Amino acid sequence: MTEKIEFIPHGTITTPPGFTAGAAYGGLNEHAKFRLDVGLLFSQVPCVAAGVFTQNQIKSAPVLLCQERLLSASPIRAVIANSGCANASTGANGLAAVRVMAEVAAAKTDVPASEVLVASTGVIGRRLSTELIRRAADNMELRPDGGHLLARAIMTTDTKPKEAACHAGGSVIGAVAKGAGMIHPNMATMLCFITTDAVAQADTLARALQTAVEKSFNMISIDGDTSPNDTVLLLANGLSGYDLAHADQAAVFQEGLDAICIHLAKAIARDGEGATRLIEVTVRGAETLSQARDAARTIASSSLVKTAVHGGDPNWGRIIAAAGRSRAKVEENKIALAICGVPVMLDGAPLDFDAGRLSALLRGNEVVIELDLRLGDAVATAWGCDLSAEYVAINADYTT
Amino acid sequence: MTEKIEFIPHGTITTPPGFTAGAAYGGLNEHAKFRLDVGLLFSQVPCVAAGVFTQNQIKSAPVLLCQERLLSASPIRAVIANSGCANASTGANGLAAVRVMAEVAAAKTDVPASEVLVASTGVIGRRLSTELIRRAADNMELRPDGGHLLARAIMTTDTKPKEAACHAGGSVIGAVAKGAGMIHPNMATMLCFITTDAVAQADTLARALQTAVEKSFNMISIDGDTSPNDTVLLLANGLSGYDLAHADQAAVFQEGLDAICIHLAKAIARDGEGATRLIEVTVRGAETLSQARDAARTIASSSLVKTAVHGGDPNWGRIIAAAGRSRAKVEENKIALAICGVPVMLDGAPLDFDAGRLSALLRGNEVVIELDLRLGDAVATAWGCDLSAEYVAINADYTT
Repeated sequence: MTEKIEFIPHGTITTPPGFTAGAAYGGLNEHAKFRLDVGLLFSQVPCVAAGVFTQNQIKSAPVLLCQERLLSASPIRAVIANSGCANASTGANGLAAVRVMAEVAAAKTDVPASEVLVASTGVIGRRLSTELIRRAADNMELRPDGGHLLARAIMTTDTKPKEAACHAGGSVIGAVAKGAGMIHPNMATMLCFITTDAVAQADTLARALQTAVEKSFNMISIDGDTSPNDTVLLLANGLSGYDLAHADQAAVFQEGLDAICIHLAKAIARDGEGATRLIEVTVRGAETLSQARDAARTIASSSLVKTAVHGGDPNWGRIIAAAGRSRAKVEENKIALAICGVPVMLDGAPLDFDAGRLSALLRGNEVVIELDLRLGDAVATAWGCDLSAEYVAINADYTT
Repeated sequence: MTEKIEFIPHGTITTPPGFTAGAAYGGLNEHAKFRLDVGLLFSQVPCVAAGVFTQNQIKSAPVLLCQERLLSASPIRAVIANSGCANASTGANGLAAVRVMAEVAAAKTDVPASEVLVASTGVIGRRLSTELIRRAADNMELRPDGGHLLARAIMTTDTKPKEAACHAGGSVIGAVAKGAGMIHPNMATMLCFITTDAVAQADTLARALQTAVEKSFNMISIDGDTSPNDTVLLLANGLSGYDLAHADQAAVFQEGLDAICIHLAKAIARDGEGATRLIEVTVRGAETLSQARDAARTIASSSLVKTAVHGGDPNWGRIIAAAGRSRAKVEENKIALAICGVPVMLDGAPLDFDAGRLSALLRGNEVVIELDLRLGDAVATAWGCDLSAEYVAINADYTT
């Protein structure tokens, strides 16, 4: 990171000038009473917006609405979001409900409903009560420090809110995200809303967001499942005058956006359902970037790698086996593998190492896996988490 | 199944005439003292053989040896197998060890070493002690009822041996298998040895085996991981005179081989590491067979589906979401979904159902998921198991 990128302590999505947010209790999840579950982000001036959405063929009603509104390239003033109900696989009822949700936000903020985006997360296949959303909006106050509340309102099984902000040259970028489960390459049940006061055209903004997502949210995995609700939104209000039409300013902005997205992606992986530690997998020496990414993600999402890390078990053969079933070209006799800095395999043959010491290192907060395929120059990093009995407990009894 | 296929009670790999087997304690796994871990299958006459092997790019030394020997189309007389050490990612040492292992079996049975196949399962990256194999072989007795011992010798975290035999027209087919972990579409850490007294040319036998494997072992998933050691071997000694060169006899044999392989595949899924119940997923109405298979396997291997089944949680949205991220074409508004015979979704919209009753059904021994995509005529069935905290416990501490 260059000196032009500086993280802002306690930064959140309302750190960039011109944005306010709020949250309220709607009661959408009958098992989580009295917690914030409806949130609203508001921009005092019209924003240029970009979005990246789930690659699942089953798309939630809010995702379909956002995609339609971003295609029309109309200005965006607000984002309303809820947890507790995904409003996915809800048929015509769901499509009607998401429009009502946008109207609720529009009435609250006095903007046209067509300038509102919507995001939902929670149980699939359950009908959304727009009456509960409306009541929550009535009780909501939009504030310049409201980003922290919005970060809480979108949490499901997350154990902590995920927020960050940074200076990127003359612009400020702020963001909130939620993750926890159904997190897999090509997004996940994750929501991330990003704001900035930079000036950008829609196509520039869309490209910058796609680039950042590919190296951050698309490189994390919790459990291999992909949700119909995945949404990353980026709103630029232009108040700073820092203009991405200038290549140098665009480069600095991209660096800041990448840093924010990677920061939040790692926070999501670290806080995966039941997770006790972060797994960072770097694959070097792949023939292509796409192969490097696939190998890194396959290792980070392997159940056997994840359980071995959970148990502090230096069972490195599972890492090699995961690489071998990825789409990356692998030649076993060229491979070099190190775990937490300890070389365990070279040229396809096992090395002697101190298993007790490596087992202790595996029980740290972060486990770093470095695999060199020695076939090319491409490098990629993916993040995941260990797989614990707690993950099973959380997911065995989610709706009941 | 036609009347020509009849399962034989207590059948095993030595049920077909002309085969003997034995097993012994080798001590290859320091954590599993005094259990059978070296097994040997012997044919009194030369066999035509076929094999299907792991699709992982990392292949164990035994897999490489089997592939080489089957290419040469030499007759096969014996298969030696061990658990406790995979002899994978072991470099030149491993390639030498697998040849010694074949020589040990050859000396024991008085056949050329080139007529011996080898299979191993266990920890990857650990060197195989051929001295322990040799000692085990010395202590082994080959018997016509020895198939039951061989079935035990290849077990790792399996909780029960997996064996079956059937009459298929005028031939007999027998088999043993092991599964338990690292089980995923396109095989798994699974071994399966099959014998028959049918008469077959090598290419006919290879095609029959590939066909059976595609609808059985390639349709099961325990945990999404694929092992470097997966091996299915089929040996035909010709003693029955039942000749697969006749189309009608080949058809009956194929039916029997399919039935044996599906029986063992289901036994592997049901006995997945930590599993408490079998999940059977049938996808109908797909545009192509390959899409039907991919959708069925994706659902059967989804961590979220598996944990929901474990908890008896009728969270059917996870099934739809898994189908949506598969390679099968899915149009949400056409989908019909039933779980344990209870319709939960039709035409893309949720149906009202008795959640308490469905939750009770989900706690049975077998959970049947039926998804109709209503886009075509292709049908496929996949099998998996629930994901339990016990899976995590088993895999968090496998080598230490």
